[in-house]
Amino acid sequence: MASHVAGPDIEKLIKLLARLPGLGPRSARRVALHLIKNKDQLLVPLSEAMRVAVEKVQVCETCGNIDSASPCTICTDTRRDPSVLVVVEDVSDLWALERASVINAAYHVLGGTLSPLDGVGPDDLNIAGLLKRTAKGEIREIILAVNATVEGQTTAHYITDQLQEQAKELKVSNPAYEPIRISQLAHGVPIGGELDYLDEGTLLQAIRSRKAFE
Amino acid sequence: MASHVAGPDIEKLIKLLARLPGLGPRSARRVALHLIKNKDQLLVPLSEAMRVAVEKVQVCETCGNIDSASPCTICTDTRRDPSVLVVVEDVSDLWALERASVINAAYHVLGGTLSPLDGVGPDDLNIAGLLKRTAKGEIREIILAVNATVEGQTTAHYITDQLQEQAKELKVSNPAYEPIRISQLAHGVPIGGELDYLDEGTLLQAIRSRKAFE
Ligand SMILES: [Zn+2]
Ligand SMILES: [Zn+2]
Repeated sequence: MASHVAGPDIEKLIKLLARLPGLGPRSARRVALHLIKNKDQLLVPLSEAMRVAVEKVQVCETCGNIDSASPCTICTDTRRDPSVLVVVEDVSDLWALERASVINAAYHVLGGTLSPLDGVGPDDLNIAGLLKRTAKGEIREIILAVNATVEGQTTAHYITDQLQEQAKELKVSNPAYEPIRISQLAHGVPIGGELDYLDEGTLLQAIRSRKAFE
Repeated sequence: MASHVAGPDIEKLIKLLARLPGLGPRSARRVALHLIKNKDQLLVPLSEAMRVAVEKVQVCETCGNIDSASPCTICTDTRRDPSVLVVVEDVSDLWALERASVINAAYHVLGGTLSPLDGVGPDDLNIAGLLKRTAKGEIREIILAVNATVEGQTTAHYITDQLQEQAKELKVSNPAYEPIRISQLAHGVPIGGELDYLDEGTLLQAIRSRKAFE
């Protein structure tokens, strides 16, 4: 009786909704009811948006972003500076930087971080794709916008080594070759952050990177 | 730039997901990414389940339940006792009772509670449909499974009055007519509930409705 309270079609919908991040069985039922009660205003357009996503959404073969075109909207945006490449771990990081509108550059999504304990090695990330892009000689700066975690920093170091290795080789075939500038995000006290709530590592970094008071 | 971070198709999906109860703009983005990254395992079946819901799901014309058939799975279930009618405010309450497998009866969904302040009167609820069902003389008991709120109790009183009015009329045309038994859910300390956390109203009700210790 309880297994098919609402008929098999709705139960199936609830079961799938319950697999979305942040939803559980209870909230999935609430969402399903809300969808059904707002059929024309919500269920129909959401169903249609999902159908479009199924048909059109893909991973950009250039940068690893997710979009309905490949190369993606960002890669084909001519108002961006293609000589600056922001390297991120995940598409969600790319979206976060874009939402903040902090830089008008190109991106490269690694698809994770090096994590030997979890069996994630260089070949599991899109590092080869990054080196292919930098080999063309059109990129002047790489901003390693990885998370301030051990894995993020390990990955940043690995990529830096690979880029320096590549720079040496490119210099051999072209003595005029200028190596790519590699930078990383500044670490410190977040805006609005209270020192009391920050960990020692952040505080140490904030002290070490201290700047003249303006 | 920031308005179309992920291309219009994905932005539209995110915007619709953000309208689901319990989700905000941030979690909607996380859900969209999760869907796209798990295209075959989640996005495709969920999209299909929504399409089926759009096409098939409807409100049962007998009881007000939501199902892919009308009369619904519950109304056509011959193993249920059709002489007992559980009156609930919302489909979610019907589902909650069914999940708990506490009664094998028929249901009637009111679609809300009387709330003069919000402009909800008797005609806005499915009370006429309830009286039409009880007029047939096949229902012996009505369980008013409304919420233990002021609005729920007001609604219960109103329905009780209407049913007693109807019983009088039915008795006129048929002196052998037996009035319907009307009951409501017991109030008290919930199982596992700690007295310390309960409000005064619940405690008062629990004392008043106290029973001999078994
Ligand atoms: Zn791209
Ligand atoms: Zn029904």
